[in-house]
This record gives sequence, C-alpha cells and structure tokens, in this order.
Amino acid sequence: MNIKEEEKREGFHVVGALLKHSPDIIKKIFIPDSRNDERLETLISVAESLSIDVEVSKRIKQYPIAKIALQHTLGNKDLKEFIESSINQNPTIFIIDNIIDPRNLGACIRSAIAANVDAIIINKHQCSPITSTVRKVSCGGTEIGNIFMVSNLINIIKFLKDQGIEIIGTSEHSEKIYTSMNFNTPLALIVGSEETGIRQKTLDSCNHVVNLSDSKLINSLNVSVASGVVLFEIKKHKSHQ
Amino acid sequence: MNIKEEEKREGFHVVGALLKHSPDIIKKIFIPDSRNDERLETLISVAESLSIDVEVSKRIKQYPIAKIALQHTLGNKDLKEFIESSINQNPTIFIIDNIIDPRNLGACIRSAIAANVDAIIINKHQCSPITSTVRKVSCGGTEIGNIFMVSNLINIIKFLKDQGIEIIGTSEHSEKIYTSMNFNTPLALIVGSEETGIRQKTLDSCNHVVNLSDSKLINSLNVSVASGVVLFEIKKHKSHQ
Repeated sequence: MNIKEEEKREGFHVVGALLKHSPDIIKKIFIPDSRNDERLETLISVAESLSIDVEVSKRIKQYPIAKIALQHTLGNKDLKEFIESSINQNPTIFIIDNIIDPRNLGACIRSAIAANVDAIIINKHQCSPITSTVRKVSCGGTEIGNIFMVSNLINIIKFLKDQGIEIIGTSEHSEKIYTSMNFNTPLALIVGSEETGIRQKTLDSCNHVVNLSDSKLINSLNVSVASGVVLFEIKKHKSHQ
Repeated sequence: MNIKEEEKREGFHVVGALLKHSPDIIKKIFIPDSRNDERLETLISVAESLSIDVEVSKRIKQYPIAKIALQHTLGNKDLKEFIESSINQNPTIFIIDNIIDPRNLGACIRSAIAANVDAIIINKHQCSPITSTVRKVSCGGTEIGNIFMVSNLINIIKFLKDQGIEIIGTSEHSEKIYTSMNFNTPLALIVGSEETGIRQKTLDSCNHVVNLSDSKLINSLNVSVASGVVLFEIKKHKSHQ
C-alpha cells in the first residue's frame, strides 16, 4: 500500500460515499485484515459489483482506505461556470466565511449536504483546508457536494448578487430572527466562526443578516447546528412552493 | 487548590454560566496566572460583584476553574415532582435515549438549552455520565438546564403520557417527515445514537416517529444537529400560538 496523502480517502462513510457517488475515481480499496464484519462485507460486495479492486492490508488497523485519482480542486472560475450554466432556478448556496477548526468545518459540510444545498463555497484563506479530519467528520459530504474553494469571497458575493442571488448572513447580534424571512428565493447563506462570527467586511456585503435565537440563556449554538437549523428552514420554504 | 473531580467546573463557558445562573453554589474561583486578558477581567469583575472569592493559581494553565458545592443529581422522583408542579402548560421536553459519546451528549444538551426546552431527560444506564467533556462541549448548558438522569425510561415515558404529553421519536427509517407535524402541543422529543438510533422498546412507546430528511445523499445528520433542527421547529410552532 503506497498512497500519497492527497490520494487517500479513509473511513466507512467516506469510502461508502465515493462508491455511491464517484466510483469512477476509485483506483483501489484497501481493507484491514483484522476485522470481518457485516459492514466490511457490504463494502466489499459493492466494490466487487463495480469491478473495483479490493486488497487486504496488514498495515490498516480499523477502517477501509480508498486510493483515488487526483482531483482538480474547484475554484472561482469553476464556481462562476457552475452558477451560470448548471445550477437550478431557485438555488440554495452555503458559504463558509472563516471556520478554522477542521471538526467544525466538516460538521458544517455534513449539515449542508444533508439539507441538499446546491453548492458549498469555502473562503480558502480564512478556513481550514479539506484535511482528513474534515473529510471524516463530514461523513462523506466532502466526496458528494459541489464544493468550491474561492480566493476572493467579496468578489464572489458581488458576482452572486449580479446573478439575482440574495446574500443572507448570520449573526447573534442581529435583531432579525430567521423565522421572519421568506426563504423561497435564490439565496446564499453565510456562516462564520463561533468565536467572532462572520468577518465585518463579509457582513457588510449581505442583503440581510439574521439571528437564530432570542434565547439569552446560552452563548450560541454550535455553528454546524446553526447551519442545519437555517438550511432545513430554507429547504422547507422551497419544498412548499 | 484542592478540588475533587465532582466539585470542579472548568472553562469560560461553564464558569460563566454558573456565575449567571447559579452563583450561590460557587465556593471559589481559581484563575490561571499566565493570562491577563479582557475575558478573564470580565469574569473577575462579575465574581467580585457577587462577593465570590477569586484566587490566582500557578497550577492552572489556561481556563478558570470553579469549586462548587456538591450537587444532588436530579432523578426519577424529582422529574415527577417537576412535571406535576413546576412545568409550564405547553412544555417541550427533550429525552436522550442512548448516547454514549460524551461529545455528542454535550452537543445535544447545548442544542436543547439554546432551543429553550423545559427539561432534559437522560436515560442513565444507556448514556455517558455528565463528564467534564460533556460539560465543556455543552458550553455551560449542563449548569443551566433542568437535567434529570432517570433509571427506567419506559416508566417515565408512561408517566409523561399520563400527564397528557405526546411522545415523539426520531428515526431515519420513518416515512413521516417532521415538517408534517403540529408541534404546538405538550410534547417530549426523543433522540438516540447515531449508529443504531433509538432502542426498539423506546421507539415502540412513542406516539409518533418522525424523520428529518428525505435526502438519500448522506447517511444522516449529526444527532446534535438533528436535535437542533427539530427543537427549533417546535420552538417556532409554540411561539406562533
């Protein structure tokens, strides 16, 4: 087993998501020889049905590993092409402004994918890169979503606005509660760090800034929970159209 | 500094929540001598305004520690008294059936407190105890909420039903989407482990079992996110009454 870090995808959720959504990029799957359970059996039979090589490796301890073809990271240009040509008429876009903690970043991606967002935009210079921890915590979300790592978020926000997409920031200092919004419209939701929130210049470029809770009991929700609460509210508004 | 584990509460969120909601149980606060920032200054001035002793300790590295008077853990009998006498007319109760992972348990408590639930019931023999990790991840939620550790959940569920409280379970196998429910009613929401869900006998005792998502893209939401999504939906139904 000789795999570079960037070709390596580890864990049942991650390898499972790859088998389901992008089997064509898998070169080989390595499995531990120390276990022999139903979960592993299922994975092996799916891989074999897709004619993907499976190799038992003594160097793997617990979780399966997929070796994949190196992927091109999607950036500003890909995002613009995607928005102009491929996206649906009433899209929901999720923007992550400044989340450094890999666990929080992965958890946010998991929430967003479960809420069926059309694209995830990550502000490259203010966020954690997509590390193996991010992949693991996202439970395969990083392998499924349309994720764009962009370098100038303010420009991207301006571009989205020009395409008729409303920009909605979140802040615990806003007096506008999210439940007062009409979300049945093309929109991009922005979340930021738990400690300091969205950066001021990002906040300034939003059409609306909403708060999640009028509860003063506790500091605030975890950012992945906050993302889930608002994204599922948006999903509900759009499915009732 | 000589504190037993059960008298010790650590971290800014946790000590801050104690100062705000239960200052009378704090015996003393210990602070690190290695830092001297605004966050610590604020904490010191709040403690002093409440006449609580603050001591600088070289043995503390980063975060403040409160020594508290030993608390009586609330159990079955306390819960019954609380439900019969103190709770509001349209309560929301949050029940945790079987979450072993302390981080997930703490995250669920944080979500529930932010959503203003009236009580949290933890199934004692199937969940992690309230460890320091649970306290830390809950961001002070464990110091604020009415949390009951109960020993026979099925009996407790029967008791709640007798009090006119509807029991709502969550399962990714249910075909009833949570958005189809009327939540403006006295109710208890139950969540379970991410791997196996709520235990079958708990599921059997529910009035309704709801699913969160019709998305087949990803395995499921993190349990604290799922809790947040449904509890904020319940909060919204009740605040529109």
